[in-house]
Amino acid sequence: MKFLHLGDLHLGKTLSDFDLIEDQRYILDQILRIADKESIDGVFIAGDVYDKSIPSEAATRLLDYFLIELAKKEIKVFMVSGNHDSDDRLNYGSALFASNQIFISAVFDGTLHKQSFADGDTEIAIYMLPFVKASQVRHYFPDEDIRNYDDAVRAIIKNTVINRKHKNILVAHQFVAGREEDPALAGSESVGTQSVGLVEKIGYDCFDDFDYVALGHIHSPQKVGRDEIRYSGSPLKYSLSEANNEKTVPLINVSAEESVQIE
Amino acid sequence: MKFLHLGDLHLGKTLSDFDLIEDQRYILDQILRIADKESIDGVFIAGDVYDKSIPSEAATRLLDYFLIELAKKEIKVFMVSGNHDSDDRLNYGSALFASNQIFISAVFDGTLHKQSFADGDTEIAIYMLPFVKASQVRHYFPDEDIRNYDDAVRAIIKNTVINRKHKNILVAHQFVAGREEDPALAGSESVGTQSVGLVEKIGYDCFDDFDYVALGHIHSPQKVGRDEIRYSGSPLKYSLSEANNEKTVPLINVSAEESVQIE
Repeated sequence: MKFLHLGDLHLGKTLSDFDLIEDQRYILDQILRIADKESIDGVFIAGDVYDKSIPSEAATRLLDYFLIELAKKEIKVFMVSGNHDSDDRLNYGSALFASNQIFISAVFDGTLHKQSFADGDTEIAIYMLPFVKASQVRHYFPDEDIRNYDDAVRAIIKNTVINRKHKNILVAHQFVAGREEDPALAGSESVGTQSVGLVEKIGYDCFDDFDYVALGHIHSPQKVGRDEIRYSGSPLKYSLSEANNEKTVPLINVSAEESVQIE
Repeated sequence: MKFLHLGDLHLGKTLSDFDLIEDQRYILDQILRIADKESIDGVFIAGDVYDKSIPSEAATRLLDYFLIELAKKEIKVFMVSGNHDSDDRLNYGSALFASNQIFISAVFDGTLHKQSFADGDTEIAIYMLPFVKASQVRHYFPDEDIRNYDDAVRAIIKNTVINRKHKNILVAHQFVAGREEDPALAGSESVGTQSVGLVEKIGYDCFDDFDYVALGHIHSPQKVGRDEIRYSGSPLKYSLSEANNEKTVPLINVSAEESVQIE
């Protein structure tokens, strides 16, 4: 199966008074063309789908359009919430969308939900982690000591049965750091020393069980810690410092072979 | 086929500072029980689904819940927008919901859309008219003289091919008046002399082609002009003047027999 990894669409974003919705529609149309050309089976949307917790009407119309176009092409969608999204608003319709192979995980309910697909002899398991804070996770795991984001995500993964014989993919929206380095920021995130947009760092090694981790939150495309833990970056440049970065969309090939191929 | 006629749910409504969401959930659960007991095939929701154009998270969660429960029971849904709803927000997901037999018409696009079902030898055609103003309709019918709501709705119906051999049902959210009388208001509508909530009156005789007209807008259950043109009323009482009215939900039986049965 072949996947496209997207994140940080920030639909409905404005820069000063400039409405980006037409640019965003243009980019989504380009992504739909890539999906056709590359015969994509599924799209990961790793959070910050909307720019605001109450999205504009134009933003909801654009997401609706994008999801319908993907459904028409019979491309599966795996979408999680980000820190900019309202869990409940992004969650609306998700149970009904599943019959169109559109899977949304916007509200954490104590379980890291997965969707599994047979691809020849390989089973591909796609886990979807909505954006979570420590406070949202703590009461589901009363026996774990959850003090920060890192503890929270580790507790969730520890309490999930992951079969290493399968190809395991995680879609998540978090601030993930490498061993001694922070991800390179794009400039359009709001930044503190141990956090981006008040989202605290978590260590990449908590993702050891996953063959690919499709991350959102950082707007610059990059690997974190190892090749298969990636930020796709935002498809549009949202700050001047991003102006010189070429934007590309990671294509992920998952097959029976040993490792996940990334183009 | 047997239908339930609902309207004016006003999900997310508050009275002064009092949040009605739990009462609304209770009422929707009662409606789900009626649907089971009466072996209902479909539910009409005749607009003002939400109380505000930007519905609260709790309101979107409640509508989501209601639609999922109806889908689980394999009950069809025919929902139109009202003057309180945002067309675009209510429309979100509608194309994808259709595979679950949830049909939403929230944005008028120049066509009065219908869904048809065979019921034995009878064809039942359910037309869904989203809430429209004259200004929204005018440019679709440049040859018609559309000055007010009445002209607008008549122009739409005139330009729709309606087969009188079928059982034709219309779901709409408008202020419909009888020959020399206005509908009896419930008290929770905002009222002018020729309008309710800035929605102008239209004459009931424009609905002559329909066997049943499931109306929303007026909160008191009542017939307008003839037995088969009805306001279901709002399922909850939203004003003191409504306190003494018993709330019931119209049950509509459509069969091959001559006329539509209403309980």
